[in-house]
Amino acid sequence: MEAVALVTLLVALEYFYLAIMVGKVRTETGISAPAIVGNEKFERVFRVQQNTLEQLVIFFPSLWIFAYYLSAEIAAALGVVFLIGRIMYARGYVADPGRRAPGFIIGSLATLALLLGGMTGAFLEWL
Amino acid sequence: MEAVALVTLLVALEYFYLAIMVGKVRTETGISAPAIVGNEKFERVFRVQQNTLEQLVIFFPSLWIFAYYLSAEIAAALGVVFLIGRIMYARGYVADPGRRAPGFIIGSLATLALLLGGMTGAFLEWL
Amino acid sequence: MEAVALVTLLVALEYFYLAIMVGKVRTETGISAPAIVGNEKFERVFRVQQNTLEQLVIFFPSLWIFAYYLSAEIAAALGVVFLIGRIMYARGYVADPGRRAPGFIIGSLATLALLLGGMTGAFLEWL
Repeated sequence: MEAVALVTLLVALEYFYLAIMVGKVRTETGISAPAIVGNEKFERVFRVQQNTLEQLVIFFPSLWIFAYYLSAEIAAALGVVFLIGRIMYARGYVADPGRRAPGFIIGSLATLALLLGGMTGAFLEWL
Repeated sequence: MEAVALVTLLVALEYFYLAIMVGKVRTETGISAPAIVGNEKFERVFRVQQNTLEQLVIFFPSLWIFAYYLSAEIAAALGVVFLIGRIMYARGYVADPGRRAPGFIIGSLATLALLLGGMTGAFLEWL
Repeated sequence: MEAVALVTLLVALEYFYLAIMVGKVRTETGISAPAIVGNEKFERVFRVQQNTLEQLVIFFPSLWIFAYYLSAEIAAALGVVFLIGRIMYARGYVADPGRRAPGFIIGSLATLALLLGGMTGAFLEWL
């Protein structure tokens, strides 16, 4: 389970970095809190962080339930795939929102595999 | 605990579905990323997903702490109540934002029961 | 671990309170769902809740992994620091967005300490 914990915190660290980027681009673009719109560059970085947040809320529980009921090794490997997808997503989106799809799809498929695999594992245990 | 894991992932699956709906309605309404405003239909579906996200971040920890310190069976049952409330919320909100209250209240009360029950259970154990 | 569970749910309770505040200020300011912009007071309270959400998604996993691999007592203590920081943040931000920094920094440093400490603990166990 240590590998699952490490992957969890590496993903958390990438997200922490994104949150710092939002603060930085807020200063650069002059979009003062509480505003969240009004500058394309700010909105891209902000949406990258928000979309990552939207994913993490189900990625973490799916990762751990999969790890517990099916396999910690495969869970950790899918977690690494998720992390790579999310880094691709962030880089693509900031360059051009039209390039956010590949990373998004990789991350979503990793989450879906963890979710459905975890569900299968918990269901088999429950029988 | 398997029932708690299954409820967790069913709720995650409903949320995953909502995220797909946001992508779909983005295409339909022509609200291109990073924009999140400008079309009432898009904003409704987006807010349904966002509000579900806002709830999940405390629903999951409350569910598991209640399950661990009080009762896994009651936790799973309250989790099903939460899920039903959130489905009602999503359907009501998309039809008319004025109809979002009943599902919202059911979901919030389930979360509050899990939160306060979990707190009581952990506190009694801590004594 | 009971202290960690209690801190988790106290933080969840503060967040639950913030969500109620958003609903209340929606009624007061007449910003009807699905709108999330258009009134400075509403936007401040809404951003406080949103930013807390943004933090919680990595605070909770970091807290528990730190507690499990390093120390439950120190984790709970850092969790209390986080909670105090977030209360300062909320009060400061609503009064004046320019006063949100101190609470934000305290909360972020607590999260970062939990994240990096948890990573160290899990890594040492993994070796």
